[in-house]
Parts: sequence; structure tokens; C-alpha cells
Amino acid sequence: VSSSHEVTGSQSPGAGAGKRRRAVELVSTGTELLSGRVLNTHARTLATYLAPFGLVLHRDTTVTDEPAAIADAVRGALARVDLLFVSGGLGPTPDDLTRDAVATVLGRLVVSDAAAESHIRERSERRGRRFTPAIARQALVVQGAKVLLNPVGYAPGERLCSGDKTLFVLPGPPTEFAAVMDAHVIPWLEAQTDGAGRLPQHVFLLCGKGESDVVALLKRHRLPPKEVDVAFCASPGQLELRLTGRRHGAAVRSRVEKAADTLRRLLAENVFAEEDTTLPAVIGSLLRAQGKRLAVAESCTGGLLGDRLTSVPGSSEYFQGGLIAYTNDAKIALLGVNPDTLARDGAVSESVAAEMARGARRVFAADFGIGITGIAGPGGGSEQKPVGTVCVALAGQEEALTRRLRLSGTRETVKFSSTQAALHLLRRILSGRPQDRE
Amino acid sequence: VSSSHEVTGSQSPGAGAGKRRRAVELVSTGTELLSGRVLNTHARTLATYLAPFGLVLHRDTTVTDEPAAIADAVRGALARVDLLFVSGGLGPTPDDLTRDAVATVLGRLVVSDAAAESHIRERSERRGRRFTPAIARQALVVQGAKVLLNPVGYAPGERLCSGDKTLFVLPGPPTEFAAVMDAHVIPWLEAQTDGAGRLPQHVFLLCGKGESDVVALLKRHRLPPKEVDVAFCASPGQLELRLTGRRHGAAVRSRVEKAADTLRRLLAENVFAEEDTTLPAVIGSLLRAQGKRLAVAESCTGGLLGDRLTSVPGSSEYFQGGLIAYTNDAKIALLGVNPDTLARDGAVSESVAAEMARGARRVFAADFGIGITGIAGPGGGSEQKPVGTVCVALAGQEEALTRRLRLSGTRETVKFSSTQAALHLLRRILSGRPQDRE
Repeated sequence: VSSSHEVTGSQSPGAGAGKRRRAVELVSTGTELLSGRVLNTHARTLATYLAPFGLVLHRDTTVTDEPAAIADAVRGALARVDLLFVSGGLGPTPDDLTRDAVATVLGRLVVSDAAAESHIRERSERRGRRFTPAIARQALVVQGAKVLLNPVGYAPGERLCSGDKTLFVLPGPPTEFAAVMDAHVIPWLEAQTDGAGRLPQHVFLLCGKGESDVVALLKRHRLPPKEVDVAFCASPGQLELRLTGRRHGAAVRSRVEKAADTLRRLLAENVFAEEDTTLPAVIGSLLRAQGKRLAVAESCTGGLLGDRLTSVPGSSEYFQGGLIAYTNDAKIALLGVNPDTLARDGAVSESVAAEMARGARRVFAADFGIGITGIAGPGGGSEQKPVGTVCVALAGQEEALTRRLRLSGTRETVKFSSTQAALHLLRRILSGRPQDRE
Repeated sequence: VSSSHEVTGSQSPGAGAGKRRRAVELVSTGTELLSGRVLNTHARTLATYLAPFGLVLHRDTTVTDEPAAIADAVRGALARVDLLFVSGGLGPTPDDLTRDAVATVLGRLVVSDAAAESHIRERSERRGRRFTPAIARQALVVQGAKVLLNPVGYAPGERLCSGDKTLFVLPGPPTEFAAVMDAHVIPWLEAQTDGAGRLPQHVFLLCGKGESDVVALLKRHRLPPKEVDVAFCASPGQLELRLTGRRHGAAVRSRVEKAADTLRRLLAENVFAEEDTTLPAVIGSLLRAQGKRLAVAESCTGGLLGDRLTSVPGSSEYFQGGLIAYTNDAKIALLGVNPDTLARDGAVSESVAAEMARGARRVFAADFGIGITGIAGPGGGSEQKPVGTVCVALAGQEEALTRRLRLSGTRETVKFSSTQAALHLLRRILSGRPQDRE
């Protein structure tokens, strides 16, 4: 459901590019990652952490819990790169053998670490668990490791040096993997870049523009500048655009900032955030800041808009509620939609969306009402109103604003894109840009 | 958010086990899979397809689009296994170089395939796209390949033999990967197993039982039998239990069936399906078959229950609609919840859930109403009603049934588990088992 694409700066990566962008590998261990039961998300997480430092993940080798397979993968990766991450297999059960496999490759012993042991003992006491030999086993590390205590779990991570190679061993559960990255790996990476920190970067989250539109716009304005890359990530109803400088230093940083200024001006109508967030969270901040309240009336989205709005903690401050009006009867009886409008324009029409939005606003005594009606598919389409035809409306104090959309994709993505379009309409009103074109 | 676990049959895998369970590898190609933008789901998909044939994925090597990296990974995998899958890099752009890399490893040429070319030409004509050289490029295959036409895309898959090794090359987009698996790879696997087909297997989807409960139950009843494995996959509000025989033949098949009969009897209250499906789909079939209609009243789930119910195509036949009553005012005004009940028991109570359920049933003139009210977190908890306290209710013609839940996890998983618990209550009524204990 999402695609990605990279547009490189006007200078193509030459001989020096290899130095600026350092290759990294990951070895993910765990039979459950290969059994079809658990999705391996470590590569995505790690790549996202590494990108701002100019580090590029070149290979992820996922192997079972067998020590021979782990050792083989670690040995292969160490022959190719000088920064390696290994995940998983540090837990308390007999099939957690990653530390032993890594020790074998490095020709070292496995030893118990005192700091890790007291961390584990305290954690188990705090949680009222017995400090069993199985739990204590998690204090074992490869000899010579810098131990990275686990802020949210038992088994610590490890940093190992072997010649000029650095090897991080991290716990497998995704929350623990991320917590050890945050607490130990990122500070180490920041120190490694001689205090220069992350590469200059700027992110835009967009709604209502496709990747090809933005690529054409960039071309017209001769963007990105020298030594700046643009990466896109398209998902239903949203486009992420990320500018990243290829090196540290004021010159590239200023080029990233200038390019961001230009894009902000060119894409003002479509940008909903300049940081990693979600549209419901942005809407929530705007509504809270302005002391306004919102209600929704959903037909084809079936509750997804309400679900997304209430996914933001504290949303009860501004979200009043909603009506899932899946039938015409419900639209008439509960939202006050005029039967004549339904008969004249059909349930999927801008006029019905507008009456639903006004109905939601009135029923819940809210400042704003959103109405969505459409055909999510796979059935129910006609020649005039094919699957993916969706009408969204926003009612405030003044005349309701409406949009007619022609969306493509699955039932799920049509529903999601519909909620995104409706929220984007509200965002523009809340930002004081009601007159913007689509 | 999900965990997996395997309980092996009473006979531990001995020397012969390696033969019964054949090792397979996957090489996933695509720079986007390593950039943090796209999640690699191929390993999970492939493992799920292969399991019923006794084939076990031992390694997934994800590499960038570079031909040298692809060739290196393919060469390494072919040295270890005799059945290899390669995904991605078959598209029209210059960085789609998987076929060239595979051809290099096998010492063969890349040639244009006539059947693939006419398939691609017809598909592009049907979609009103010009048959450009870039599109035509997708008809290139490795010499000697059995071409596997792509039912939902342009680039075909390929089956290649090299000595006693078999190599499948499959398109990278997940829908195309699955379509070529279904159309070509699965029939080939079925033919390979000498007509024996899939290994004997039985799946149960459960609600309201944890993995440890079921493990204890299995132990008490000396299950699984010889040469039968049990695998679990736990996700919020759901547990999947899969019995798989280790070999073909009537003896193991009958042991799987006998174990399934025992489990069906022991877990009757908790089993909601014996096939791969979802609880909303099961509910939909039951409601449709009985000609009954459903409406919902949601507080803490914020629309998620409506969203899940309407994720089933055709749900408008039985889903009447819902009210997202996030505030007390909405609960009183729109659902007719008694202000005294709210004052006496609080918004998060079985009595309020019951009144919400009755309100939804009445407002939408439905046969059944569901009410959910609770504290999804992270804020809003108290000592008496901590985060994760959720009350669900089901109203039909008779007295409403209610359940008080103590859920753990994130806001998202608490919401999901709440909808699951409510749907499970309805399923048991629709199946005529109102008196079952939890």
C-alpha cells in the first residue's frame, strides 16, 4: 500500500559518495520471523534511525535461532561492512543463543555482567517475579562487550569492537529494540560524527498531491540543490517528502533550509506538517488551540474517521462524537438529511454530504461537522458513480464546503483516503486558508 | 503486537525430521525494502504458503537493487538449499535488474518471451497504455525459464531449474507476488508432493483464551499426538491455534482430526472459526443467514467497531449504523442513557454499556445492539477503574448481556480487544450458546 522513491541531488554520487554514505548490515535472528507468524519490522526501524546519520542499510539477513546459521550470517556480514547490527535471541529460553553465536565468531567467551545482573534482579523484584536461573541467564554477554542496559526489558544490548569493526547486538522485541537504540546507539552515533550530529534534514507531510505532481514541480524549480537528496514515501491519502543533505556543515544545511522555504511556499495548500506526525494529531492540536469542537457523520467510512480521531490521546477534549449512518433511513432520521435531496442527488452526492455534516454539527452541538458518503467497493458502483466515488463535506458556521473525490484502491484504502481528505479540508479551514485550491 | 510459539509433538524431531521438513530460502530484492520506507512482508507471506507443504523458510536475505548484491545472495542461498525464491526487481525501470543477476549466477542469457510479451501487450492495450520499450522490457526472462504469467500485473514470474535446484523468481509488489504464488507455485508444489497435497492441518481461531491457558489444557489432555505439531499466533483479542501433521498419510491425518475433535469439544465456547477468516466476517455470515440486523454504540472504541464491521464487503445488508457517543451528553441525548445510571455507576460501567446497547438497538431499529464504554488510556484511569477497564454489552430481545474486561496494552490494542470481546459475545448468542461461561 505504500511506495517509495528517491530523487538524487543534481550532483550524481561520484567516487566520494561511498564515503559519505556508509553501508551497514543487519542480521535478524528468530525462527518466528521466518515461520509466517511474526512480521520482521527491524529493517524498517533501523533504516529510519540510521538515515539522518548518512548510514544506509545494505542487507538484512533473517535467520532462524540455530547458532550455526546466526554465526554464518554474522561472519558474512562482517566481511562486507564495518558496522553491523544483530537483533534477537537474547531472551531467557534455551533457543536464545545469539550471544553464543556472536562469541564464537569473535573467538571470545560468554560471561555474566554484574551491572546487567543487578538491573535484571531489580526489575524482576519490582515486578514481583522470582529471579530464576532462566531470568539470570539474560545477564550473559560476550566478553569485552560494552553493556547497553535495557530501559524497558531484561536482556541488555551489547556493543562489541573487533579490529575496526563495530557490532551492536540488540534485543528482539520491537519496543526493546527501539528503546536500546534510543538510549545507547543514537548517542553513540552522535558522538561518532564528531559532534556534527545528524545530517541536515527537513520533512513535509502532504495531502492532495501525488508524487508525480511534486516531482514535476521540483524539476520546474531546479530542486533539489547540490548535495541534497529528496525521498518520497506515498501512502493512501498522504505523501511524505524528505530533504536530506549529503554531508554535515553550514553550506549544505543552508541549501536544505532554502529548498524547504521554496517548497513551503509552493506547496502551502498541501503541507499539513513539517515533522513526523499524523493528520488526526495535527487536527487535534489546532482544535484544542482554538477551543473548537468536532463531530462526524460517516457513511462509507463506517466509523474509521471517528476511530482515527480518537486514536489521539486526549481527543475527548475536542471530539464530541459521531454518527455512522450507513442507511438512508439513518441519514434522514438521525442527521436530518432531506429525503428529497437523497431522491434527487442520490446518497453519494455533495449535497447529501453537506447535509450530513450540518446534521452532525447540530446533533452534537459542535463547532464543526464532517460528512462522508461514498462507494468504498468492491460492489455498489455504477457508470456515473464508480467505486471510489466519495463526497466529503465540512460544515462550520458558514456554508458547508464540499469535495467530490475519485479514489482508487481497495475498500480499505478508499476508506482511509476519504478520512484523510475530510480531515485535510478541516485543517485548511482551521489554518485560515479556506480559499485554497485543491 | 503478536507473538508466536510452537509446541512440538511428543516425538522430538530426530534424524529423519530434516527430510520431512525441507529447508527453503528467500532472497528479497529492492532498495526500498532497506530504506525504511516499505515494510518487507514477503517472508511472512511465503512462509504461510509453504507451511502446509512441510517446507520451512530458513533464511530471508534482503538486498538492494544492485546486481552484484543480488547475485551474491542468490549464489549463497543456492549453496545451502535446493528450493529458492527470489522476489522483486522485475519491473520496467533501469534499476530492475534481478533477472540479469539471476542469469549471471546460472550462466545463462536473458531473452524475450513471446507469451509474456503478448500478455503484456494485451494488458497495456486493455488499460489504454502505450506499449513502450520500458513496458516491453518486462517480457525478458532468463533463458530456459518456465514463464509464469502474472494474473494481476505485467512482469511474469519464472521457474528455473539448475541441476537438482529449483528457483522461483517472483514479482515484488505484494499483490502480484501472491497472485503468481496462487496461480503457478502452489499448483506446482501440489504436483511435486506426488498428489499427496498439503500436510494434514487444522486451524482454530479463538477469543477469550490466552496461550498459556491452552498450553495447560493441551498438556492435561496429552496433546498434540505423535507427529503432530501445534503452533500458536497470539494477537490482541485473538489466538490462532494450528495443528499440522509432520507427514502425509492416513495415520497422521486421522491423528490431526482426532486432536481437532478433542479441542473443538474443550474450547467450544472460545472457537469462532475453523478456517482463516476474521470475527467481523464470521458475524456477518451469521447475521445474514439469520436475517438479523445490528447497530452499535461506541464510546472508548471511537468508531473502530463500526469500521471493522464495515470492512466486510456487503455489510450494509446487516449493519444498520452506529453512534460514537464519546461524551456523557451524547450518551444521554442520543442513546437515552439514564443520567442517574451515569451518576450512580459512572460512564465506564456494565449498566451504562447495557443502556448504550439498548439505545443503539432502538435508535437504529436493529435486532441487536452492542454497547462499549471504557478507558483506553494512556490517561483517564483511576485506582478503581484503571486504564484498560472496558465494559461491553449486547442487547437483543431479552435482557442485555454484559461483560467487564481488564485489558492491557496500548490505546490501540485496548480498543481492538474491546471490539473483539463485544463481537465474540454476539457470536455466541448467534450460535445459540448464550449460557457459556467465559
